[in-house]
Amino acid sequence: MDEAFEKRLPKPSDLKAMTEASLKAAFAGESQAAEKYLVFAEQAEDEGFPNVAKLFRAISFAETRHARNHLRTMKGIHATADNLRVACEGESFEIDEMYPAYQEIAKVQGNPQAGRSVRYALKAEMDHKWMYAQSRETVLAGKDIEDKRVSVCLICGHTVIGDLPDKCPVCAAAKEYYRTF
Amino acid sequence: MDEAFEKRLPKPSDLKAMTEASLKAAFAGESQAAEKYLVFAEQAEDEGFPNVAKLFRAISFAETRHARNHLRTMKGIHATADNLRVACEGESFEIDEMYPAYQEIAKVQGNPQAGRSVRYALKAEMDHKWMYAQSRETVLAGKDIEDKRVSVCLICGHTVIGDLPDKCPVCAAAKEYYRTF
Repeated sequence: MDEAFEKRLPKPSDLKAMTEASLKAAFAGESQAAEKYLVFAEQAEDEGFPNVAKLFRAISFAETRHARNHLRTMKGIHATADNLRVACEGESFEIDEMYPAYQEIAKVQGNPQAGRSVRYALKAEMDHKWMYAQSRETVLAGKDIEDKRVSVCLICGHTVIGDLPDKCPVCAAAKEYYRTF
Repeated sequence: MDEAFEKRLPKPSDLKAMTEASLKAAFAGESQAAEKYLVFAEQAEDEGFPNVAKLFRAISFAETRHARNHLRTMKGIHATADNLRVACEGESFEIDEMYPAYQEIAKVQGNPQAGRSVRYALKAEMDHKWMYAQSRETVLAGKDIEDKRVSVCLICGHTVIGDLPDKCPVCAAAKEYYRTF
């Protein structure tokens, strides 16, 4: 990040509790707006409105900039080893608490589609957790992780490092449905 | 969206209240994780860990797939004209209520950096609102909007359709700091 860029960003600050609560809520709001607009962009494309899709994508990106600013101001961006720890903790919460609880609620309320949406996510978070944990070890040793491709199933979010499986082990989608990074 | 793709996705469903509340919270969680990982990817890049950055970006994308699934299950994806209305309403809430309230909190608590982060966002949301409102009129008439470039300031999220200004009218960044879609 260059200096001219950095000096215009809001700076990481000690915040009073109500101001911090505001930024937390604003980060949540911007994040959800950004994600919603990405989904709406896909829908616009499906309906044959590519320019509306582009507008949704651009505005989604603007919301990611606001989310970044709010996170930065409330000192939520750390050195990478710490960011990996934060990421690991978030995944652990989802694996150990959030999704198992939601899975039971969907089951007792007889909502199989909600159960499916939860199951897809829960499976992926398990992989994410160890990917982050292993990467953290490498970064703590001062090195970058190996340059391998990382692929994500467009349907269920299954995430795989290296070779693609013939079909997704979680949702059984064909390998064409993976996006590779 | 093709059929093989669609049939594996969780389907839009009538949900009981507690299941719906679960998916709403899960959508909020996945959205925030996705945004956080994008920011962490930028940080990893700054520190010279491009492969960790790639991992963060791929996993961020996986979280966007979970967010999409949750939103879809709770019938949060509509036809584009309605999606534009939902987007407009979200921007209106941020412009009329959320950010003015947070701006006052930051002011009374003497947190100028939080005030800046809020001001950047508030300014951009005003532009987003009319962009969505105008696009909705066009889509309701059965047409796509014009094919113009849309650019976003990397610092403050200022969003402009068509020609770039010489510098950002909100944060005064040079035009090189815009990303064009």
